[in-house]
Amino acid sequence: MKLLDLYAKLKKDINSIEKELERSIDVDHPLLRDASLHLLKAGGKRIRPVFVLLGGKFGDYNLERIKHVAVPLELIHMASLVHDDVIDDANTRRGQLTVRSKWDNRIAMYTGDYIFAKALSIVTRLENPAIHRIMSKALVEMSIGEMEQIRFFYHTEQTVRDYLLRIKRKTALLLAISCQLGAMAADAPEKTARLLYRFGYFAGMAFQVRDDLLDLCGTEKEIGKPPGSDIRQGNITIPVIFALEEPRLRPALLEELTRIKACDGQTDIHRFLEMIRGSQGIARAEALASLYIDKAIAVLQELPDIQAKKDLTGIAHFFGNRSY
Amino acid sequence: MKLLDLYAKLKKDINSIEKELERSIDVDHPLLRDASLHLLKAGGKRIRPVFVLLGGKFGDYNLERIKHVAVPLELIHMASLVHDDVIDDANTRRGQLTVRSKWDNRIAMYTGDYIFAKALSIVTRLENPAIHRIMSKALVEMSIGEMEQIRFFYHTEQTVRDYLLRIKRKTALLLAISCQLGAMAADAPEKTARLLYRFGYFAGMAFQVRDDLLDLCGTEKEIGKPPGSDIRQGNITIPVIFALEEPRLRPALLEELTRIKACDGQTDIHRFLEMIRGSQGIARAEALASLYIDKAIAVLQELPDIQAKKDLTGIAHFFGNRSY
Repeated sequence: MKLLDLYAKLKKDINSIEKELERSIDVDHPLLRDASLHLLKAGGKRIRPVFVLLGGKFGDYNLERIKHVAVPLELIHMASLVHDDVIDDANTRRGQLTVRSKWDNRIAMYTGDYIFAKALSIVTRLENPAIHRIMSKALVEMSIGEMEQIRFFYHTEQTVRDYLLRIKRKTALLLAISCQLGAMAADAPEKTARLLYRFGYFAGMAFQVRDDLLDLCGTEKEIGKPPGSDIRQGNITIPVIFALEEPRLRPALLEELTRIKACDGQTDIHRFLEMIRGSQGIARAEALASLYIDKAIAVLQELPDIQAKKDLTGIAHFFGNRSY
Repeated sequence: MKLLDLYAKLKKDINSIEKELERSIDVDHPLLRDASLHLLKAGGKRIRPVFVLLGGKFGDYNLERIKHVAVPLELIHMASLVHDDVIDDANTRRGQLTVRSKWDNRIAMYTGDYIFAKALSIVTRLENPAIHRIMSKALVEMSIGEMEQIRFFYHTEQTVRDYLLRIKRKTALLLAISCQLGAMAADAPEKTARLLYRFGYFAGMAFQVRDDLLDLCGTEKEIGKPPGSDIRQGNITIPVIFALEEPRLRPALLEELTRIKACDGQTDIHRFLEMIRGSQGIARAEALASLYIDKAIAVLQELPDIQAKKDLTGIAHFFGNRSY
């Protein structure tokens, strides 16, 4: 199944969320509106709203209520990207100029602050404090994750566990609560919401591992940017951590990493990419992604047999095989 | 009355809030904890928690509940300062190194993100969605205010209204909701909470006008930094806007502002300060601050005669005369 087929089925509701997203950032401040709109129009797969909608199908599906969760979760994702771009000195994302490059870092910082605040102010329209709590706690974890990322830049002694905790905070957590809060906003049973959280978590972990694989193995055409962007920023991902465990590879790889770090990432990384691609790190990371997908699908077994369950299964397989 | 006398009466509860503030940022991440603690230890007058406590006295005062408002409001203030310092390239605040100068801008950005998120996650422990809504909406307004500040840097055609709206968002709003949410967390009547909001708003406007006056008229000893820091950053405050309205002064003042802007604030501002100090802008701004204090005190008349009302009156007078 293709992700687009699924989107076709949800099209009406996704369009409605898209309109609501635009409305949510239609602020009476030219610079802030332009920067936010620029960010929104840069697109994205809107996976978080899709997870919210599908989570909602396990309860009393009411788009008007569910919107108040779907919109904030996508806004939080957008805001985290714009702050990420400040850290990464990124000039483009998805082929578009970033806010920090089109305007400047200060504008990017405050645009992110504004969108974070807006997200929380929208979700508080729901009279359900538990939902507010879960969303703000996730924001706390995400911000710790951002700091972790900086702390582990070019850190060759990091463990698999360090990496997993980092991608949980960076990616999996927001996807997990997207499924969970969709269910909660639709008053689904607590157990259902909890299972959906776990599904989103496992699917999110697989998604990020594959994303990190793509950055190392994809072509520029496939990933929309030159391969190896992660290492240029100092971000050591799981295939690299695995490769560092290979005694025959480790000394040369360490040397190469020291060299790249010394150049602050502004150097030819051809040799580094070759080493990783020739290592067991790739196959081991692929196996890890598959393991997470299996876990995600296993969780779904415990949920009622509705169409949304098939759709989530489809998304999980899609995450497991993604090569775009 | 002196502010310290008031603090003596509230000392036990303020100490309890202070401990809770420390606990709130005790995160299992060395860099984040150090940066947050550094920020906390840099001090501040804790006016927001004091407003919360006094607001709470108008209802069923319960420190355990009120804490969940007092701590987040001080955290929001701290987080906004750390993001401010990034914008202002500030190296010191209250005589201490800023986070951005002790670490770097990226650390400062994420420390701010973390503290904002933490604030919201603490307030959501209260089962009162209206409180969550008011706090997150204030954050939205504050972030718009920050962008407004950038937009109006060295903008000599701004109106008094532009300025007032900006300081509302920058200062008065958070003080207003401190009083209001203290009352709400103590289940005070709705009308009481609304009046307290208005008190905090007027007092906050007076506070900021006097703060802006101090930056122009105070000595380095009084204000802990060289006078004229605002204009060096491009921040045109109300005495300057008033002075620009004087035909005999306007041309020379505009010329001086153009020169300071061209040097990006890194120039001798002696002549600028002399012009403003010799203008009607000072007296007019003082009158404006007094007007706001009168309004704040008038609002208090409508509230029951309890000790907290006397304390708020004392604070209002203190704001009206501050010269520290």
